[in-house]
Amino acid sequence: MTYCVGLLLDAGVVLLSDTRTNAGLDNIAIYRKMFTFSVPGERVVAIMTAGSLSVTQTAIARLTDAAEDPDADENASILKAPTMLKVAQIVGNTLSDVTVEVSNKVNRMNQGASASMIVAGQRKGGPMRMFLIYKEGNFIEATADTPYLQIGEHKYGKPILDRVITPETSLAEAQKAVLLSMDSTLRSNLSVGMPLDLAVIKTDALEVSELRRIEATDEGFAKMSSAWSKALKDGFQQIDTV
Amino acid sequence: MTYCVGLLLDAGVVLLSDTRTNAGLDNIAIYRKMFTFSVPGERVVAIMTAGSLSVTQTAIARLTDAAEDPDADENASILKAPTMLKVAQIVGNTLSDVTVEVSNKVNRMNQGASASMIVAGQRKGGPMRMFLIYKEGNFIEATADTPYLQIGEHKYGKPILDRVITPETSLAEAQKAVLLSMDSTLRSNLSVGMPLDLAVIKTDALEVSELRRIEATDEGFAKMSSAWSKALKDGFQQIDTV
Repeated sequence: MTYCVGLLLDAGVVLLSDTRTNAGLDNIAIYRKMFTFSVPGERVVAIMTAGSLSVTQTAIARLTDAAEDPDADENASILKAPTMLKVAQIVGNTLSDVTVEVSNKVNRMNQGASASMIVAGQRKGGPMRMFLIYKEGNFIEATADTPYLQIGEHKYGKPILDRVITPETSLAEAQKAVLLSMDSTLRSNLSVGMPLDLAVIKTDALEVSELRRIEATDEGFAKMSSAWSKALKDGFQQIDTV
Repeated sequence: MTYCVGLLLDAGVVLLSDTRTNAGLDNIAIYRKMFTFSVPGERVVAIMTAGSLSVTQTAIARLTDAAEDPDADENASILKAPTMLKVAQIVGNTLSDVTVEVSNKVNRMNQGASASMIVAGQRKGGPMRMFLIYKEGNFIEATADTPYLQIGEHKYGKPILDRVITPETSLAEAQKAVLLSMDSTLRSNLSVGMPLDLAVIKTDALEVSELRRIEATDEGFAKMSSAWSKALKDGFQQIDTV
């Protein structure tokens, strides 16, 4: 599995993905699940992926090809699409097409293949938007009421987000929240693993403001993780039993 | 869905279940999912259930009938079985039989029916034991390395257990832990709902030491819930961003 989480805040978007991919428990590898596309000053788009690697790699490859193709039109290139909604549609159609193609192959072996994606970004003159794309190609959008989206192993890390995230949350607090949400998931589920990819896109920056890989040896993350563990244990101790 | 959690500690077992049952989102009801059987001074058994209500009700009815039948032998009655392992086998066989019977009916409508159970207890002269029974009737046992078992919506409430529970945890701390584990689940998943049933069986007590229903209006639980929320938020604030 995978865990990817994206927060849509007034100040921008904060995206975090793990990198663990596994085909069975004995075949574990590291693959990037976060991809960014930009024409600085004009638009920026980030995509995170979960699900079958054969589906997500092919879908990202097609989206990249179209984005780099000078002849691709606004219905094919996420760097030319007139709105972020259109970007979500292009990603959705690509994901749906690839899912059907791969599924037709693996169905013959009585297996399935599916994937989902989070797409976030902004084009000049439009608002920052974030979408969750389902394998069928349809999608939902993050709003002020529900300012975060998750794909993959989303349950372990949801309680912390439910408690602390609002659209007014600062980018620094938001980074802390997604890292702690990931920390809970890493501790409880083997199919999610380090290193992590963290991206921040500030509102109206129209470029990736920060893109950072956090390695398993990262001292800051380890410190945050143990501080959170201590905070939880201390908080637990201080609460009276019913 | 459901959330039930059981802790096997040196001092005894602590069991907590919710009561929400739903057939679709518009058909929600309250059903007890915790059942206790005892011959005080001789043995005590508690069972928690998750899954299809038609399966769990029938299975519990059969187990109850056999436990109350003076002619039932040690292969049928969980109150006569010579060991807790045998109790787990009886529960497993009953669950498996009922699952197959109900599935044969609903399969004709292209639907499935399944359930799982947690069984905990002690008989005189033996240790306290706790098992998770799968729908197929096979089971696993809680150990000192993994002193807790969960059925139903287990992911939201797992991080807190992973952090604070060891076999040495006191019964009071354990009750706090299962209630906070349930609190996280209640907040994040609509299919789990109040009221809650909490049971404590002290080691060598050979009877149910405490069996309590915690209503939605329970002030102690509401206070604990908001204290935990505050502890999480305060802890979150105090941690430095990486």
